[in-house]
Amino acid sequence: MKKQSWPLHDVRHWLEPGPVVLLSSHWQGQNNIMTLGWHTILEFSPSLVGCMISAGNASFSRIRQSGECVINLPEASMIDTISRIGNCTGDDVDKFAEFGLTTEKSDKVSAPSIKECFGQFECRLYDDAMVDNYNFFIFEVVAARVNPQPEWPQTLHYVGGGVFRTDGDVLERKALFTKVS
Amino acid sequence: MKKQSWPLHDVRHWLEPGPVVLLSSHWQGQNNIMTLGWHTILEFSPSLVGCMISAGNASFSRIRQSGECVINLPEASMIDTISRIGNCTGDDVDKFAEFGLTTEKSDKVSAPSIKECFGQFECRLYDDAMVDNYNFFIFEVVAARVNPQPEWPQTLHYVGGGVFRTDGDVLERKALFTKVS
Ligand SMILES: Cc1cc2nc3c(=O)[nH]c(=O)nc-3n(C[C@H](O)[C@H](O)[C@H](O)COP(=O)(O)O)c2cc1C
Ligand SMILES: Cc1cc2nc3c(=O)[nH]c(=O)nc-3n(C[C@H](O)[C@H](O)[C@H](O)COP(=O)(O)O)c2cc1C
Repeated sequence: MKKQSWPLHDVRHWLEPGPVVLLSSHWQGQNNIMTLGWHTILEFSPSLVGCMISAGNASFSRIRQSGECVINLPEASMIDTISRIGNCTGDDVDKFAEFGLTTEKSDKVSAPSIKECFGQFECRLYDDAMVDNYNFFIFEVVAARVNPQPEWPQTLHYVGGGVFRTDGDVLERKALFTKVS
Repeated sequence: MKKQSWPLHDVRHWLEPGPVVLLSSHWQGQNNIMTLGWHTILEFSPSLVGCMISAGNASFSRIRQSGECVINLPEASMIDTISRIGNCTGDDVDKFAEFGLTTEKSDKVSAPSIKECFGQFECRLYDDAMVDNYNFFIFEVVAARVNPQPEWPQTLHYVGGGVFRTDGDVLERKALFTKVS
């Protein structure tokens, strides 16, 4: 099953529901991964995503200095790996090796993608104006691809304290959407 | 069933999973409501939430000028009302009256809460530095209350195109959380 490119203006389809994601980065010959739940879509086009990356994380300076990362979408079945990646630091461990994950070459950034994840959103740092005050990075998604199947993968949504919630039914109300998309 | 106060540093329990929320506001004698999916937690304490409120919405200038709003959490059963509120504007309709919603007095802000929603997070505008460039409001939650039951209400997560996803199972991996909360 080959990942297929996804329209950049519709990254919201995957991120707006609020899933836990894995941010992969590359800096000075080292790859790293962190778990992230604090993100939001900011604009359709250019395709902007905001992420709160705490300054205490190794990823913070690596992503800031390289100006790049990949937002990887893991399925809920990766819950143990997702938890562990978010509870150790790239200063101590090579997380790709430690957790048996495979690097996949990205299209537009030097940060590697995580093959085991079903979706990838390659990002360039677009505006760091809020980084000093809020650790809030504004990224532009410059390439996106997603597994075509399943159409509705199970993701995780973090509530804190080691507890997650998965996804449920899909409901549609298209007829009521006369104004917004 | 009386709503109970919720710890301000733990607002993330309700918003980090990415539910669609209803923002209520008050300005110059008028109440208004908009639907919002683009939000993220930014800090535990002070309790900060970022919201992208498009400048084309009536809510934009009302919230900016009053410096206040309430983030209301609706259950999935309110899907029709949630869709409709997000597809009409307070410039044309009184949404409380139109959708049969009840105003509830807020504790710390003059914006009304929506009684029919199971949770309320009263907000003061904390930083508007990103409003001109990104329509991104940083709010501080100054009061919070939530229905004690059910423990895991069904919320909605918007994917675009009039389609939502609900919540699923609750999974815990507490033993793996040795570092983060
Ligand atoms: C489910 C989960 C969600 C997390 N969300 C965030 C987040 O939004 N922002 C953040 O800075 N850290 C978050 N973390 C914590 C980082 O992933 C963690 O500090 C990690 O060890 C950082 O790795 P690094 O030092 O290699 O960059 C989260 C952790 C978990 C387990
Ligand atoms: C599910 C859903 C999610 C929405 N999310 C947002 C959002 O994050 N930001 C935004 O500015 N508008 C969002 N909207 C659109 C506003 O709710 C809509 O423009 C509304 O009519 C604004 O009302 P107002 O003009 O009374 O402020 C959303 C609408 C729906 C239905």
